[in-house]
Amino acid sequence: MTLDDPAGPVTIETVEAAATRLAGHVRHTPLLSSPFLDEIAGRRILVKPECLQHTGSFKFRGAWSAISALAPELREKGVVAYSSGNHAQGVALAAKMHGIPAVIVMPSDAPQLKLKNTAALGAEVVTYDRHGENREEIGGALAAERGLALIRPYDDPQVIAGQGTAGLEIAADAEALGIDRAEVLVCCGGGGLTSGIGLALEAYRPGFRVRPVEPVGFDDVARSLAAHERLEVIPGSRSICDAVVTPAPGELTFPILDRLCGPGMTASDEDVLFALAQAFRRLKIVLEPGGALSLAAALRQPDRIEGDTVIVVASGGNVDAAVFARALEMA
Amino acid sequence: MTLDDPAGPVTIETVEAAATRLAGHVRHTPLLSSPFLDEIAGRRILVKPECLQHTGSFKFRGAWSAISALAPELREKGVVAYSSGNHAQGVALAAKMHGIPAVIVMPSDAPQLKLKNTAALGAEVVTYDRHGENREEIGGALAAERGLALIRPYDDPQVIAGQGTAGLEIAADAEALGIDRAEVLVCCGGGGLTSGIGLALEAYRPGFRVRPVEPVGFDDVARSLAAHERLEVIPGSRSICDAVVTPAPGELTFPILDRLCGPGMTASDEDVLFALAQAFRRLKIVLEPGGALSLAAALRQPDRIEGDTVIVVASGGNVDAAVFARALEMA
Repeated sequence: MTLDDPAGPVTIETVEAAATRLAGHVRHTPLLSSPFLDEIAGRRILVKPECLQHTGSFKFRGAWSAISALAPELREKGVVAYSSGNHAQGVALAAKMHGIPAVIVMPSDAPQLKLKNTAALGAEVVTYDRHGENREEIGGALAAERGLALIRPYDDPQVIAGQGTAGLEIAADAEALGIDRAEVLVCCGGGGLTSGIGLALEAYRPGFRVRPVEPVGFDDVARSLAAHERLEVIPGSRSICDAVVTPAPGELTFPILDRLCGPGMTASDEDVLFALAQAFRRLKIVLEPGGALSLAAALRQPDRIEGDTVIVVASGGNVDAAVFARALEMA
Repeated sequence: MTLDDPAGPVTIETVEAAATRLAGHVRHTPLLSSPFLDEIAGRRILVKPECLQHTGSFKFRGAWSAISALAPELREKGVVAYSSGNHAQGVALAAKMHGIPAVIVMPSDAPQLKLKNTAALGAEVVTYDRHGENREEIGGALAAERGLALIRPYDDPQVIAGQGTAGLEIAADAEALGIDRAEVLVCCGGGGLTSGIGLALEAYRPGFRVRPVEPVGFDDVARSLAAHERLEVIPGSRSICDAVVTPAPGELTFPILDRLCGPGMTASDEDVLFALAQAFRRLKIVLEPGGALSLAAALRQPDRIEGDTVIVVASGGNVDAAVFARALEMA
């Protein structure tokens, strides 16, 4: 089940095999809580801070999973990925830890910090013009020319399986707390994290319901789930959640999402900034806007959530200091 | 070993008994790392983020330990503590979770947020005038009048033992990583956390050396360790590290510190702000100035540290948004 077989099924066995490969390399992130957040949410709220994962987001899980699943003779040639942010850093670090080269295709106008970090993690950064060039073509050409394995951001079975290890951790920690029923809100772009968590919880916590949360105006997954078919985002929207503004659910992720997850929720920029400030004040963690969507939905839309426990996956914390300081000021 | 016996010896058995009582109630905080911080520090640096502990600081450990160690008939009458910040919130939450009343004596000019939080955690807040009244006398009088047990901030064997559970976690996590030798830097006020961690590591990681870090100008512990006697802070200094500006090492903590810990280090306000910004950027955690002293010393004084691994206990994250935003701007 490698890139040669992109449509191969992803099952709980795939997720568990990824967990075995990730053991000792990934951080088991905890479930955090605060009585102050419980009060706002009107129920118990548990937050899984994937901002504390290596490189500051869950993306390291899928990157490590995909790289470690490659056949050794393929892996040693190196990997290529395209991303403007979190996937870039996850792939760069996972490649470095495997001792293999990584080429990351990034927009030339990406934030300097993200370009710098990716290079500092040992990757070769190839920039392109977002307005005139196609990153997938560039990535594909590099893969072909140099024999590199392409690590897609979400439409890769091993990437989905790697993200699903976050779901295995939720299942284990919830069991230890005696929690049988909960809604699990997940920040959602292409659906790799949401679908992976869905698979893990289907197997181990079937009383849990996994629900994607997207930015207002980028609710392609929510609408697709309602229609039971893949729909594209409606153009013209803007959001501060740069990490999750994907055009449509993935080809591989959507069937899993459709079978296991929903209904989707959305959160406004204002609610995301509120959640970001609450995470700062009550949990002492740093979230980026796209990583706070799930917390925003839990805190601001309690009437749309069922049951007495909600688990929130806070997916990343790669935010510029200026943006963060502004969020604190506004809240 | 209760308040009736304040000079009772604190041993590794006391720490382990506290760990048993804390199990299931305290968070086992992880060891975080970043290749970017390793590069600055010139060695492997592991950060234990006690800001992620309940109420945002390690103080919850000692509070729970002391309250849970009280005889039931004494405990049910309630507890009293004096503190302007972290100890207040730790005692308030631990008392609430035990279902007993708590009275917290706080300065009337304490930050509104801390007063509000402590009350919101169910405690009765009694304010006093810092310039005309003595908080220890007020606390003692309340204890006597109402039959409340006084929970001192550090000079209590069960408080020291509770803080020492952080050291047991460090020992276990370091063993899992195969680390036999390390320097362990601990933010230090009265010495409860430092001495407790010293006891735990003496027993389980004897190759580790525990070193207190204080603000420049508040180096009473460092000077006391050098002189092998308790010395007071030299008046007239100022620091942004409000949580740790204590006048002298504790009566109970100092013999332990003197036997097990040192030499002490200090960190400047500027270095603390640098560390706070690095923790934001590289670890995605929120530290208060006093909780970043240890990280500041590790990042800015590598030549004063021995060996290839340093473990940093980042003790708390209760910082106002305005102070935090200013630190991000400066760095």
